[in-house]
Amino acid sequence: MHLHVTSQTTISGVGERRFTLDGITGALWTPAGTDADTATPRPLVLLGHGGGQHSHAPGVLARAQRYVTHCGFVAAAIDAPGHGDRPRTAADEQFFADLQRRMAAGEPVGDLLAEDNATRAHQAVPEWQATLDALETLGCVAPGGPVGYWGVSLGTMIGIPLVAAEQRITAAVFGLVGARHLTDDAARITVPVQFLLQWDDELVPREAGLALFDAFASTEKTLHANTGRHMDLPRFEVASAELFFTRHLTTGDPVTR
Amino acid sequence: MHLHVTSQTTISGVGERRFTLDGITGALWTPAGTDADTATPRPLVLLGHGGGQHSHAPGVLARAQRYVTHCGFVAAAIDAPGHGDRPRTAADEQFFADLQRRMAAGEPVGDLLAEDNATRAHQAVPEWQATLDALETLGCVAPGGPVGYWGVSLGTMIGIPLVAAEQRITAAVFGLVGARHLTDDAARITVPVQFLLQWDDELVPREAGLALFDAFASTEKTLHANTGRHMDLPRFEVASAELFFTRHLTTGDPVTR
Repeated sequence: MHLHVTSQTTISGVGERRFTLDGITGALWTPAGTDADTATPRPLVLLGHGGGQHSHAPGVLARAQRYVTHCGFVAAAIDAPGHGDRPRTAADEQFFADLQRRMAAGEPVGDLLAEDNATRAHQAVPEWQATLDALETLGCVAPGGPVGYWGVSLGTMIGIPLVAAEQRITAAVFGLVGARHLTDDAARITVPVQFLLQWDDELVPREAGLALFDAFASTEKTLHANTGRHMDLPRFEVASAELFFTRHLTTGDPVTR
Repeated sequence: MHLHVTSQTTISGVGERRFTLDGITGALWTPAGTDADTATPRPLVLLGHGGGQHSHAPGVLARAQRYVTHCGFVAAAIDAPGHGDRPRTAADEQFFADLQRRMAAGEPVGDLLAEDNATRAHQAVPEWQATLDALETLGCVAPGGPVGYWGVSLGTMIGIPLVAAEQRITAAVFGLVGARHLTDDAARITVPVQFLLQWDDELVPREAGLALFDAFASTEKTLHANTGRHMDLPRFEVASAELFFTRHLTTGDPVTR
């Protein structure tokens, strides 16, 4: 199954291709002006967006552009089920309505989010795997890896089961999650992990986040905990993740390894 | 009071001056071939060594060289009381003997270390301040800052009271400590802090390290927790600290700020 490119644009030196793949919608970022089929193979970073966002949201696009221009990678993202350019089911509409009502009322939403995200992850993992199959047929993606995964919040709810199931992903940045149902999948992950926590996260109890970090079986895992609430992830963690992926997806600068 | 330079060498593009200052011994690192008095002012990073080490130990020297060559800083370190080129008192000899005996016997040493380090810190803080006074008279040090401090283990036992007392230090990297007696000083620190913890530290209980990180009053503070024991701090944290100091001591690369 091949990616069907629906549009192609160039944003400050980076080529963006929006694609569909059997009902999945997403985006691929490469150096501007490269033919995705004949370009020099590069490491690939998969980007998982947050809840309520989409595959080309500003935070995703900003990272993708830097991975292409600073790190020499290509990057790709897909819309999670019920997100972005994908249809919402009646259940999706009900969930988003419940979520907005509870947040407006100042009620806790952690359990609601965890339950919903677990359902979306169950559908999203095979979608990511099919997307990876299709991306690996492109000349611009180094065949057989290396492949990195970056995603926090919903991007981690989907990313932990994905990386636990998918041997092709060799390094991952996760965070902003403390859900207990992910502990078993985390314990199956042995690749290097960078895990982001917000020290004052109103959605993720500190102890739950620390417990999930503790669960990863990776011999190299680094917790980055920053002051601030769920949405306050500091901008400098963007550069920090680049150091991490450069170390693990390229020969990199030996002194940073 | 001025630094008395006792020796001068060049190590791979970096000039090292060993100095004494009223009984304190230390080292200053600048670009090779610069006259410390007439050179262009640069940000300064103070380096605090670990217990049993000294001001020009390999781990200190490696960081100093990178700060000079990668970051455009100058760097300085002094020997802690009873360390390096400084005389050991009878009490020092007793302490080191006790420490070696306990470690050989596999006995806990955390309390012994904390008590000893608190005493050394009491002496070392004014020594660091006198050193900073002298360094600021040099042309190669930007007058009035910015000044960074890097030190873990003993370097943090001394560094936390130093940064709490010293307004000239504007950013600090600490870690590998969980001592409760430092909580009040930590609560007086408001400058940006990067705090390093080893997740499997045999000397620092995890909860104590997390509690000390929690105590800093800094609006920007980042915890980096890595797998491994007390002495296993990963090499990539060297580059991570460079990003931190570049962000806070220079105009830096805006995308890393």
